[in-house]
Amino acid sequence: MIFSSIEFNDKEPIYLQIENYIKIMIKNGMLVTDGKLPATRELSTILEVSRNSVITAYENLEVEGILYTVKGKGTFVAKNKILKGEQWKVSWGERTNNYGRLSEELDIVKHEIPWSKNLISFKSISPDGELFDMEEFKKAFLNSISIEGHKILNYGYAKGYKPLMDYLKAYMRKKGIETEDKEIIITNGFTEALEILLTAYTKPGDKILCENPTHNTAIKIMRVHDLDIIGVTMKEDGIDLSELETRLKSGKIKFGYLIPSYHNPTGIVMKAEKRLKVYKLFKKYDVPIIEDGFSEELLYNSTHISPMAALDKGGTGVVYIGSFSKILFPGIRIGWILADKELISTVESVKRCKNIHSSFLDQGVLYEYLKSGAFEKHVKKTRRFYKEKYELALKCINKYITPSFIYGEGALHVYIGLDGISSRELLDRCYKRGVIFTTGDIFSIDDSCKNTLRLGLSRVTLEEIEEGIKIIGQCINELQSEG
Amino acid sequence: MIFSSIEFNDKEPIYLQIENYIKIMIKNGMLVTDGKLPATRELSTILEVSRNSVITAYENLEVEGILYTVKGKGTFVAKNKILKGEQWKVSWGERTNNYGRLSEELDIVKHEIPWSKNLISFKSISPDGELFDMEEFKKAFLNSISIEGHKILNYGYAKGYKPLMDYLKAYMRKKGIETEDKEIIITNGFTEALEILLTAYTKPGDKILCENPTHNTAIKIMRVHDLDIIGVTMKEDGIDLSELETRLKSGKIKFGYLIPSYHNPTGIVMKAEKRLKVYKLFKKYDVPIIEDGFSEELLYNSTHISPMAALDKGGTGVVYIGSFSKILFPGIRIGWILADKELISTVESVKRCKNIHSSFLDQGVLYEYLKSGAFEKHVKKTRRFYKEKYELALKCINKYITPSFIYGEGALHVYIGLDGISSRELLDRCYKRGVIFTTGDIFSIDDSCKNTLRLGLSRVTLEEIEEGIKIIGQCINELQSEG
Repeated sequence: MIFSSIEFNDKEPIYLQIENYIKIMIKNGMLVTDGKLPATRELSTILEVSRNSVITAYENLEVEGILYTVKGKGTFVAKNKILKGEQWKVSWGERTNNYGRLSEELDIVKHEIPWSKNLISFKSISPDGELFDMEEFKKAFLNSISIEGHKILNYGYAKGYKPLMDYLKAYMRKKGIETEDKEIIITNGFTEALEILLTAYTKPGDKILCENPTHNTAIKIMRVHDLDIIGVTMKEDGIDLSELETRLKSGKIKFGYLIPSYHNPTGIVMKAEKRLKVYKLFKKYDVPIIEDGFSEELLYNSTHISPMAALDKGGTGVVYIGSFSKILFPGIRIGWILADKELISTVESVKRCKNIHSSFLDQGVLYEYLKSGAFEKHVKKTRRFYKEKYELALKCINKYITPSFIYGEGALHVYIGLDGISSRELLDRCYKRGVIFTTGDIFSIDDSCKNTLRLGLSRVTLEEIEEGIKIIGQCINELQSEG
Repeated sequence: MIFSSIEFNDKEPIYLQIENYIKIMIKNGMLVTDGKLPATRELSTILEVSRNSVITAYENLEVEGILYTVKGKGTFVAKNKILKGEQWKVSWGERTNNYGRLSEELDIVKHEIPWSKNLISFKSISPDGELFDMEEFKKAFLNSISIEGHKILNYGYAKGYKPLMDYLKAYMRKKGIETEDKEIIITNGFTEALEILLTAYTKPGDKILCENPTHNTAIKIMRVHDLDIIGVTMKEDGIDLSELETRLKSGKIKFGYLIPSYHNPTGIVMKAEKRLKVYKLFKKYDVPIIEDGFSEELLYNSTHISPMAALDKGGTGVVYIGSFSKILFPGIRIGWILADKELISTVESVKRCKNIHSSFLDQGVLYEYLKSGAFEKHVKKTRRFYKEKYELALKCINKYITPSFIYGEGALHVYIGLDGISSRELLDRCYKRGVIFTTGDIFSIDDSCKNTLRLGLSRVTLEEIEEGIKIIGQCINELQSEG
């Protein structure tokens, strides 16, 4: 096939023309090292020339070291000795746009101290994999394959795997959310859910309101969409209500983004009564809420605080984003949006445009895992596990540090303030002593939170919590005595 | 916890205040149907009131049918009889932006005739799942879990699972591509790869050049990014070279998007010599190429046509997008971009911004599957399988239809032209006879291709191919005799 386009001239011998042609093809990379050439008989038929011309061409090229022959196998291209042409260099760095540039600038993985062995790292709030029940997971996989067969490996639907969607809708109903006029779509985690919503519903310059500080990934996604981010101060019990109303009143705000449970980074749980007040304010000014259900699964005790979406009975003003990634299998990247049908229909098309759908295999396996009851057991175990760490961390903070405040009611992290101490300076010093954490500034909309830090507890042992916080305390004392 | 915020007044009895508070909470959805209330002893402690006040409140609410008690289990919220407030309706349809609106408008799943049982559907070019070796897949899963353990289910890296990336780089080298200065990133299929590239490197109004007709999903992604799409006519051997040069010369073009192998929808394979000419033209005008490696795996015979990326030795001008989705497991959504390091670094941050990373489980399992050698076997089997269908389809087209042209050299589809027949009208008629296919218009940049259609062969049996094409032929004859 590759040879079909030779146009022979009458001046040179055929074998030479074949030789030159093969050389050009090798030079240009159309024939690659160890690539097989057609058999001489085959090529002579294709080119409508005598087989001898082809044989001569191959032999000459072999002498030149350009081809080689393996007995009984055929003729192949030798390691390419032919000089390369001029190289085409594109300056990709100059060609990127705002989205590309900002996502690099705001990519903390590229700019913050990375985790490494021998460090006590309070950076992570991702779940401890040791808690995953791998046997149950394997069973779930095998069940899914035995029920769905090869279908689970073929193209599926943008909205998601139906049994999983139904399961999650029922799960949302248990949280008190009415799902009659709502639909669900499965996304690649919380991150994609928020990214898609902003892709479909915002324009550069649009205003979005959120708690300040707030989840750094959310800030990044808002920034790359070139939104005007309006941060509202976090108080001990959550967002400042009067500041919130002033902001809502002041101008056209496209969305509110809120994390009511174990807010990231502060760890504050917004009380039920306050949820209602906040909901009513957004409703009054007709600003839809994107509710981040972050860590909500770690919340429930004997009583239950409903998500804000549950307050919006029969309404369409709250868009709920759910994810198990802080408890279960974040590596499979499954989250969801539960919202108004019309919204989900648009988001469905946007999802199809972005990546067609989330992995059906992962959705199938997750569904079987959830259905088996293993999830409830896992959540209970996880709550106990984190509770112990959280309580120890509080004790140690009070013992070794004198913070200006300690926020956080449990789950995966604690947030503390340090009067007169720059958390960046503190981090530099702690890093030398083998301890790292997340400085508050990366969660800030403005230039605030420079004297705060978040301690993520999910990946540190009890011993590391005590030792790490002790070291942080020592470093604070040093800085204070120097300052 | 939920009850901690009651502020008691001195005017009403405590039990009544508790009652009213519970009613408000139920009304506002903070306590949900069948939600459990704290035990009376517990609540009295929390509220610092006598246990009797709590007992009285619960009893009264039970009488009103608002709570119910299950012996030995506790007190629960009855089905909510309390009136709902005013509902908050947001008009989501009006709030969507260009991206959202266009992705719905161009969403063929929403606008074209869907597949249903008893239809002979020539629409699909997705792989036949019956060909998947499920036993090998299971083995690959169990291997991955036994090697990686719970790590494969936790957060991973935006660029991808290292062993898979290394495997794919080696795979690309076998195609003749130099990978020294290149990097790879794993994406959720081709769709995400293209979407991310356009997100990071284009601005509204930028010009992008492609073959006309071309892959409809690519057109959709370009449109939602508000690009100025410049289509260059497809001839029998691929893109029209002189038109291409005129276009490249005429203005600032940001990217070229090309499908050199089994072009979608035409099925044309661009010959090696032509690939070189096309490559040189793009290089001359410094317009980077996005090469869609679509169906390339079905290409190889005894000789080998290299991808265009292989021509760009030491250069950075060709961005290669690969995917196995037309042969293998599209449901797990794994594709990749191989390109210049600097570009991949930007794309890595953009990927992290969009969904953190692709499923590590899926990447792990795919890697084990590829490594096992099952892939090579599968590709051989698949080529045979599709070849038989393709040859039969050609025979039937020549027997039952007199097309103005037949394009397509194999793989998954054939593209035909029909003089004077609207393929939309033909589709309406065929649909009534139980046969559907894809009309050419959806692949067109302008208003062309109205007399063409694509027959996808991957999901039809040999019998259906014969019967379906016969019916199409009959419908054409009817239309012609009527016209």
